[in-house]
Amino acid sequence: MKQLFVIIIIILCMCFQLVMGQEAKIVEDFRPSTVNQPERKFPQVNSQGRVRASIFAPKANKVQLDLGGVKYDMVKDANGIWTGDSDPQDEGFHYYQLNIDGASVPDPGTLYFYGAGRLGSGIEIPAKDQIFFQLKDVPHGLVSENIYFSKQTNCFRRCFVYTPPDYHKNTKTRYPVLYLQHGSFEDETGWSSQGKANLILDNLIAAKQANPMIIVMDNGYAYKPQNNQGDQKEQLVSVFEEVLITEIIPMIDNKFRTIANRDYRAIAGLSMGANQTMRIMMNHLDIFSQYGGFSGTSNYPDKDVIDVATFLDGKYKDGDALNKKIKLFWLGLGTKEPDPFPKSIGAFRAMLDQQKIKYEYYESPGTAHEWLTWRRCLYQFASKLFR
Amino acid sequence: MKQLFVIIIIILCMCFQLVMGQEAKIVEDFRPSTVNQPERKFPQVNSQGRVRASIFAPKANKVQLDLGGVKYDMVKDANGIWTGDSDPQDEGFHYYQLNIDGASVPDPGTLYFYGAGRLGSGIEIPAKDQIFFQLKDVPHGLVSENIYFSKQTNCFRRCFVYTPPDYHKNTKTRYPVLYLQHGSFEDETGWSSQGKANLILDNLIAAKQANPMIIVMDNGYAYKPQNNQGDQKEQLVSVFEEVLITEIIPMIDNKFRTIANRDYRAIAGLSMGANQTMRIMMNHLDIFSQYGGFSGTSNYPDKDVIDVATFLDGKYKDGDALNKKIKLFWLGLGTKEPDPFPKSIGAFRAMLDQQKIKYEYYESPGTAHEWLTWRRCLYQFASKLFR
Repeated sequence: MKQLFVIIIIILCMCFQLVMGQEAKIVEDFRPSTVNQPERKFPQVNSQGRVRASIFAPKANKVQLDLGGVKYDMVKDANGIWTGDSDPQDEGFHYYQLNIDGASVPDPGTLYFYGAGRLGSGIEIPAKDQIFFQLKDVPHGLVSENIYFSKQTNCFRRCFVYTPPDYHKNTKTRYPVLYLQHGSFEDETGWSSQGKANLILDNLIAAKQANPMIIVMDNGYAYKPQNNQGDQKEQLVSVFEEVLITEIIPMIDNKFRTIANRDYRAIAGLSMGANQTMRIMMNHLDIFSQYGGFSGTSNYPDKDVIDVATFLDGKYKDGDALNKKIKLFWLGLGTKEPDPFPKSIGAFRAMLDQQKIKYEYYESPGTAHEWLTWRRCLYQFASKLFR
Repeated sequence: MKQLFVIIIIILCMCFQLVMGQEAKIVEDFRPSTVNQPERKFPQVNSQGRVRASIFAPKANKVQLDLGGVKYDMVKDANGIWTGDSDPQDEGFHYYQLNIDGASVPDPGTLYFYGAGRLGSGIEIPAKDQIFFQLKDVPHGLVSENIYFSKQTNCFRRCFVYTPPDYHKNTKTRYPVLYLQHGSFEDETGWSSQGKANLILDNLIAAKQANPMIIVMDNGYAYKPQNNQGDQKEQLVSVFEEVLITEIIPMIDNKFRTIANRDYRAIAGLSMGANQTMRIMMNHLDIFSQYGGFSGTSNYPDKDVIDVATFLDGKYKDGDALNKKIKLFWLGLGTKEPDPFPKSIGAFRAMLDQQKIKYEYYESPGTAHEWLTWRRCLYQFASKLFR
């Protein structure tokens, strides 16, 4: 019996080695990433989802590829070119950087994306379902940069506004509006750049799977002007809700052909943006009728059971009333998201279930707290909006 | 006599030293550049127009600031932070990069701009006349990203389209259009990013110094699809003229409320774009009535006397006819531009003078072949368009 057990263990070990050997073997089918600068051959991605970076740094002591929280050592060749590979990455978009002798810098080969509080490099690991956000020969909407002066913050701000393909043709048609927010340490460029919001909507509209809509993407960081002089800093007071309600929405309703009522106004966001927009919607059910929370809810990061009597001033107490008022309450999450997202959103869903509040729930297979989760969320959510 | 001569030489040398000493003294009034990423303190610029760069690179052997064709050595402090200053730079916008142990990389502190064939760092040396391109509390137009599929090149392309502040309000008004092109190794983003075309027009229109107009900024690189397989590359054949005439202009006239005739259609460009657009205009006087050439003309880089009989197939032979046909022929140049620009444009102007072809000529004081020259050119040119 004992002998049999040992034999089984040995066989299991051999199987494990075989699998790990396969895993460690690097498949040489690397191709330039789709978010490289024109004509740039590096970085590259292979069919295993590994990233290969390369940079000319003849006098450097140490060069690393810094991706997904891991720093991979790169190796120098006789010509002074350093090259290195990462472990396999999840499908989708990831921020990364290079580290040259301790300096963290963007990879000169890629386009740049605002995330992690800086403009930096990005890499795209082809997703099996990428057709839904690909650039295709369908009618394309416009993404417009809209600059405005905000009195609430006493500074210039900007939003990007997606108008659907026929907006300029149907000059008498008015359109519903989705206000769509980015996550923490990101900005107003995220959704139309790495988020592909415009291409997702172009594709959905061309396939008649979504109603044409306007999408407004603004910056979720907005603070009261500070009065104090000198070194002592006041605490920053967020006024994004005030900016959105009293400045952005009136401006959009004035500048664009919107249907300016709650039935045709939705709000959604990812991560920090999901938290912000849910609070804003619950405070303004007269303004919004539809909500999408991608990888976030208003109890984040709390994982405890929610006490409806006190949570958000009791705004979820009357489930019946909310079901009558809210036309779409939509939540999404990636199956590989780390703590605290699954439990925080789990606790929130338990509260909704307990209150018998109707909502839709979507899980993005095999993705973490990253943009492929949010692209998929937008794709699913947008197809249900304004129906 | 000889003694007097020696004394004069000594005095001259002392004066020279005094002046050079002043020059070499660095004034410590550095401030963050206006084109830095949010919250970034470096790079900085002082009142002499010097650039101070700084980067954390504790293990590096050598770090340099690479600006205006000069590599300035930076110095490491005890914390591993390298800092270095450039010589005084001309007013305006300049591309630059950092060099870390031989690796040329973008400075992580700045926004990025497409120029010199890559997305890279930029620095803004405040110009005395900068108010004309500054972001001010005036009504702002929109800059829209417009994606389209081009049959001529068999690929997706895009242009940015500026629509003036009232475009969305006056839904029955139709507007004139300026087609505005970038220079070599730049792209369709240049004019609305480092070029500040939208802000220049917003300011001009607010001051009633320019008529509201649409501006279309596309990419001047457009090539016939290549048929050959394998390694042997065909010569690239530019089809930008065909793309502009048969694809871009019909698309813009279809998507935007333009006045679709030659009287209200202008074309202009900088450097390579000036050359391209002049040729296109002379081939299509039925389509364009107004032209702006910023730091370039169609004889570039040739400095020889132009033979009107043969130059551009004799298109400048009949000065009288051109004067009747062309409503505005406008040329601009920076006073510090290097060879061959002044002589090439000089030879072109001599030909226009000889042919008695009417044109306007502007010189940007103290600027070279750089964006402040072209911002000023656009400011001057746009105020004369469609009058």
